[in-house]
Amino acid sequence: MSIRDTLRDIVGNVEGALAAVIMAYDGISIDEIMVPQSEFDLQSLAVEYATVLKEIKRAAELVKAGAMEEVAITTNQTRVAFRVLNEDLFAVLIMAKDGNFGKGRYLLRLKAYDLARELA
Amino acid sequence: MSIRDTLRDIVGNVEGALAAVIMAYDGISIDEIMVPQSEFDLQSLAVEYATVLKEIKRAAELVKAGAMEEVAITTNQTRVAFRVLNEDLFAVLIMAKDGNFGKGRYLLRLKAYDLARELA
Repeated sequence: MSIRDTLRDIVGNVEGALAAVIMAYDGISIDEIMVPQSEFDLQSLAVEYATVLKEIKRAAELVKAGAMEEVAITTNQTRVAFRVLNEDLFAVLIMAKDGNFGKGRYLLRLKAYDLARELA
Repeated sequence: MSIRDTLRDIVGNVEGALAAVIMAYDGISIDEIMVPQSEFDLQSLAVEYATVLKEIKRAAELVKAGAMEEVAITTNQTRVAFRVLNEDLFAVLIMAKDGNFGKGRYLLRLKAYDLARELA
Protein backbone atom coordinates (compact mmCIF):
# COMPACT_ATOMS: atom_id res chain seq x y z
CA MET A 1 0.00 0.00 0.00
CA SER A 2 1.37 3.45 -0.89
CA ILE A 3 1.87 6.07 1.80
CA ARG A 4 -1.10 8.07 0.64
CA ASP A 5 -3.33 4.98 0.57
CA THR A 6 -2.28 4.15 4.13
CA LEU A 7 -3.09 7.69 5.26
CA ARG A 8 -6.44 7.53 3.43
CA ASP A 9 -7.11 4.19 5.08
CA ILE A 10 -6.52 5.64 8.56
CA VAL A 11 -8.63 8.76 8.00
CA GLY A 12 -11.40 6.72 6.35
CA ASN A 13 -11.63 4.27 9.23
CA VAL A 14 -11.62 6.60 12.22
CA GLU A 15 -14.78 8.49 13.15
CA GLY A 16 -14.00 12.19 13.44
CA ALA A 17 -10.60 12.05 11.69
CA LEU A 18 -9.93 15.29 9.80
CA ALA A 19 -6.45 14.77 8.37
CA ALA A 20 -3.38 12.55 8.42
CA VAL A 21 0.08 13.80 7.55
CA ILE A 22 3.60 12.41 7.28
CA MET A 23 6.01 15.10 8.40
CA ALA A 24 9.68 15.82 8.93
CA TYR A 25 10.88 17.53 12.11
CA ASP A 26 11.67 20.66 10.10
CA GLY A 27 7.94 21.06 9.42
CA ILE A 28 7.92 19.86 5.82
CA SER A 29 4.92 17.72 4.93
CA ILE A 30 5.91 14.58 2.99
CA ASP A 31 2.37 13.50 2.20
CA GLU A 32 -1.09 14.26 3.53
CA ILE A 33 -4.77 13.44 3.34
CA MET A 34 -7.44 15.86 4.50
CA VAL A 35 -11.21 15.44 4.55
CA PRO A 36 -12.76 18.04 2.20
CA GLN A 37 -14.89 19.91 4.73
CA SER A 38 -12.06 20.56 7.21
CA GLU A 39 -11.36 24.21 7.62
CA PHE A 40 -8.15 24.39 9.60
CA ASP A 41 -4.78 25.52 8.32
CA LEU A 42 -3.00 22.18 8.10
CA GLN A 43 0.28 23.75 7.05
CA SER A 44 0.57 26.11 10.03
CA LEU A 45 -0.53 23.41 12.40
CA ALA A 46 2.09 21.03 11.01
CA VAL A 47 4.93 23.53 11.24
CA GLU A 48 4.05 24.66 14.76
CA TYR A 49 3.59 21.18 16.13
CA ALA A 50 6.78 19.92 14.43
CA THR A 51 8.74 22.47 16.45
CA VAL A 52 7.01 21.35 19.62
CA LEU A 53 7.66 17.69 18.87
CA LYS A 54 11.35 18.39 18.40
CA GLU A 55 11.33 20.03 21.85
CA ILE A 56 9.60 17.02 23.44
CA LYS A 57 12.10 14.65 21.81
CA ARG A 58 14.98 16.70 23.21
CA ALA A 59 13.40 16.98 26.67
CA ALA A 60 12.67 13.24 26.90
CA GLU A 61 16.26 12.40 26.01
CA LEU A 62 17.59 15.00 28.43
CA VAL A 63 15.64 13.65 31.42
CA LYS A 64 16.53 10.08 30.37
CA ALA A 65 12.87 9.22 29.86
CA GLY A 66 13.98 7.39 26.74
CA ALA A 67 13.10 7.75 23.08
CA MET A 68 9.83 9.50 22.25
CA GLU A 69 7.26 7.18 20.68
CA GLU A 70 3.89 8.92 20.80
CA VAL A 71 2.47 12.29 21.76
CA ALA A 72 -1.20 13.20 22.07
CA ILE A 73 -2.46 16.76 22.43
CA THR A 74 -6.06 17.56 23.31
CA THR A 75 -7.40 21.10 23.07
CA ASN A 76 -10.98 22.26 23.51
CA GLN A 77 -11.48 21.84 19.74
CA THR A 78 -9.22 19.09 18.43
CA ARG A 79 -7.27 15.99 19.31
CA VAL A 80 -3.95 15.38 17.62
CA ALA A 81 -1.86 12.21 17.84
CA PHE A 82 1.78 12.03 16.73
CA ARG A 83 3.61 8.75 16.15
CA VAL A 84 7.36 8.66 15.57
CA LEU A 85 8.30 6.70 12.41
CA ASN A 86 12.08 7.07 12.34
CA GLU A 87 14.87 9.57 13.13
CA ASP A 88 13.49 12.13 10.68
CA LEU A 89 9.78 11.54 10.23
CA PHE A 90 6.55 11.23 12.17
CA ALA A 91 2.89 10.64 11.37
CA VAL A 92 0.17 13.01 12.59
CA LEU A 93 -3.54 12.29 12.93
CA ILE A 94 -5.81 15.29 13.47
CA MET A 95 -9.28 14.63 14.81
CA ALA A 96 -12.42 16.44 15.87
CA LYS A 97 -12.86 16.67 19.65
CA ASP A 98 -15.66 14.09 19.63
CA GLY A 99 -13.87 11.65 17.32
CA ASN A 100 -12.83 8.12 18.24
CA PHE A 101 -9.40 9.05 19.56
CA GLY A 102 -8.60 5.59 20.95
CA LYS A 103 -9.15 3.98 17.57
CA GLY A 104 -7.21 6.74 15.85
CA ARG A 105 -4.17 6.23 18.05
CA TYR A 106 -4.46 2.47 17.67
CA LEU A 107 -4.53 2.61 13.86
CA LEU A 108 -1.66 5.08 13.78
CA ARG A 109 0.45 2.74 15.91
CA LEU A 110 -0.59 -0.27 13.83
CA LYS A 111 0.32 1.41 10.53
CA ALA A 112 3.52 3.06 11.77
CA TYR A 113 5.64 0.05 10.82
CA ASP A 114 4.24 -0.03 7.25
CA LEU A 115 4.70 3.70 6.88
CA ALA A 116 8.27 3.59 8.17
CA ARG A 117 9.08 0.78 5.75
CA GLU A 118 7.55 2.65 2.79
CA LEU A 119 9.54 5.74 3.73
CA ALA A 120 12.90 3.99 4.29
CA MET B 1 -9.45 16.37 50.35
CA SER B 2 -6.10 18.20 50.41
CA ILE B 3 -4.00 18.49 47.28
CA ARG B 4 -1.50 15.95 48.53
CA ASP B 5 -4.25 13.51 49.45
CA THR B 6 -5.74 13.84 45.99
CA LEU B 7 -2.35 13.18 44.40
CA ARG B 8 -1.82 10.20 46.73
CA ASP B 9 -5.26 8.94 45.79
CA ILE B 10 -4.45 9.06 42.07
CA VAL B 11 -1.05 7.38 42.41
CA GLY B 12 -2.45 4.74 44.77
CA ASN B 13 -5.29 3.81 42.45
CA VAL B 14 -3.47 3.53 39.15
CA GLU B 15 -1.37 0.44 38.41
CA GLY B 16 2.13 1.50 37.37
CA ALA B 17 1.85 5.12 38.56
CA LEU B 18 5.24 6.42 39.75
CA ALA B 19 4.53 10.02 40.67
CA ALA B 20 1.97 12.81 40.53
CA VAL B 21 2.92 16.48 40.63
CA ILE B 22 1.17 19.84 40.59
CA MET B 23 3.35 22.26 38.66
CA ALA B 24 3.54 25.82 37.46
CA TYR B 25 4.58 26.60 33.89
CA ASP B 26 7.85 28.03 35.18
CA GLY B 27 8.83 24.53 36.34
CA ILE B 28 8.20 25.01 40.06
CA SER B 29 6.60 22.03 41.77
CA ILE B 30 3.69 23.05 44.03
CA ASP B 31 3.17 19.61 45.52
CA GLU B 32 4.14 16.06 44.64
CA ILE B 33 3.81 12.41 45.54
CA MET B 34 6.32 9.81 44.39
CA VAL B 35 6.34 6.07 45.01
CA PRO B 36 9.44 5.20 47.09
CA GLN B 37 11.16 2.86 44.65
CA SER B 38 11.06 5.25 41.69
CA GLU B 39 14.50 6.21 40.53
CA PHE B 40 13.97 9.02 38.09
CA ASP B 41 14.88 12.65 38.62
CA LEU B 42 11.43 14.14 39.15
CA GLN B 43 12.74 17.68 39.37
CA SER B 44 14.57 17.67 36.03
CA LEU B 45 11.67 15.93 34.36
CA ALA B 46 9.23 18.50 35.70
CA VAL B 47 11.31 21.48 34.62
CA GLU B 48 11.98 20.13 31.13
CA TYR B 49 8.40 19.12 30.49
CA ALA B 50 7.05 22.41 31.85
CA THR B 51 9.01 24.23 29.15
CA VAL B 52 7.63 21.88 26.52
CA LEU B 53 4.09 22.31 27.78
CA LYS B 54 4.41 26.08 27.54
CA GLU B 55 5.48 25.61 23.91
CA ILE B 56 2.50 23.37 23.16
CA LYS B 57 0.12 25.88 24.75
CA ARG B 58 1.56 28.65 22.60
CA ALA B 59 1.50 26.52 19.42
CA ALA B 60 -2.11 25.41 19.95
CA GLU B 61 -3.22 29.01 20.40
CA LEU B 62 -1.21 30.15 17.38
CA VAL B 63 -2.78 27.61 15.02
CA LYS B 64 -6.20 28.32 16.52
CA ALA B 65 -6.53 24.73 17.72
CA GLY B 66 -7.98 26.22 20.92
CA ALA B 67 -6.96 26.01 24.55
CA MET B 68 -4.75 23.09 25.57
CA GLU B 69 -6.46 20.62 27.92
CA GLU B 70 -4.37 17.47 28.00
CA VAL B 71 -1.03 16.23 26.71
CA ALA B 72 0.25 12.65 26.81
CA ILE B 73 3.83 11.70 26.05
CA THR B 74 4.91 8.08 25.61
CA THR B 75 8.57 7.14 25.42
CA ASN B 76 10.07 3.66 25.35
CA GLN B 77 10.32 3.77 29.18
CA THR B 78 7.55 5.96 30.56
CA ARG B 79 4.13 7.43 29.95
CA VAL B 80 3.41 10.93 31.18
CA ALA B 81 0.00 12.64 31.20
CA PHE B 82 -0.43 16.38 31.74
CA ARG B 83 -3.78 17.98 32.59
CA VAL B 84 -4.23 21.75 32.58
CA LEU B 85 -5.77 23.03 35.85
CA ASN B 86 -5.85 26.78 35.27
CA GLU B 87 -3.86 29.59 33.64
CA ASP B 88 -0.80 28.93 35.80
CA LEU B 89 -0.87 25.31 36.91
CA PHE B 90 -1.09 21.79 35.57
CA ALA B 91 -1.10 18.27 37.03
CA VAL B 92 1.34 15.61 35.85
CA LEU B 93 1.05 11.84 36.22
CA ILE B 94 4.18 9.81 35.52
CA MET B 95 3.72 6.11 34.87
CA ALA B 96 5.73 3.02 34.02
CA LYS B 97 5.41 1.97 30.38
CA ASP B 98 3.24 -1.02 31.27
CA GLY B 99 0.97 0.92 33.65
CA ASN B 100 -2.76 1.44 33.21
CA PHE B 101 -2.46 4.67 31.23
CA GLY B 102 -6.15 4.88 30.35
CA LYS B 103 -7.15 4.77 34.01
CA GLY B 104 -4.41 7.24 34.90
CA ARG B 105 -5.61 9.80 32.38
CA TYR B 106 -9.21 9.23 33.42
CA LEU B 107 -8.48 9.82 37.14
CA LEU B 108 -6.39 12.87 36.33
CA ARG B 109 -9.26 14.37 34.33
CA LEU B 110 -11.77 13.41 37.04
CA LYS B 111 -9.72 15.04 39.83
CA ALA B 112 -8.69 18.12 37.84
CA TYR B 113 -11.73 20.07 38.96
CA ASP B 114 -11.11 19.31 42.66
CA LEU B 115 -7.44 20.17 42.33
CA ALA B 116 -8.16 23.44 40.53
CA ARG B 117 -10.65 24.38 43.24
CA GLU B 118 -8.18 23.56 46.03
CA LEU B 119 -5.54 25.66 44.30
CA ALA B 120 -7.72 28.67 43.53
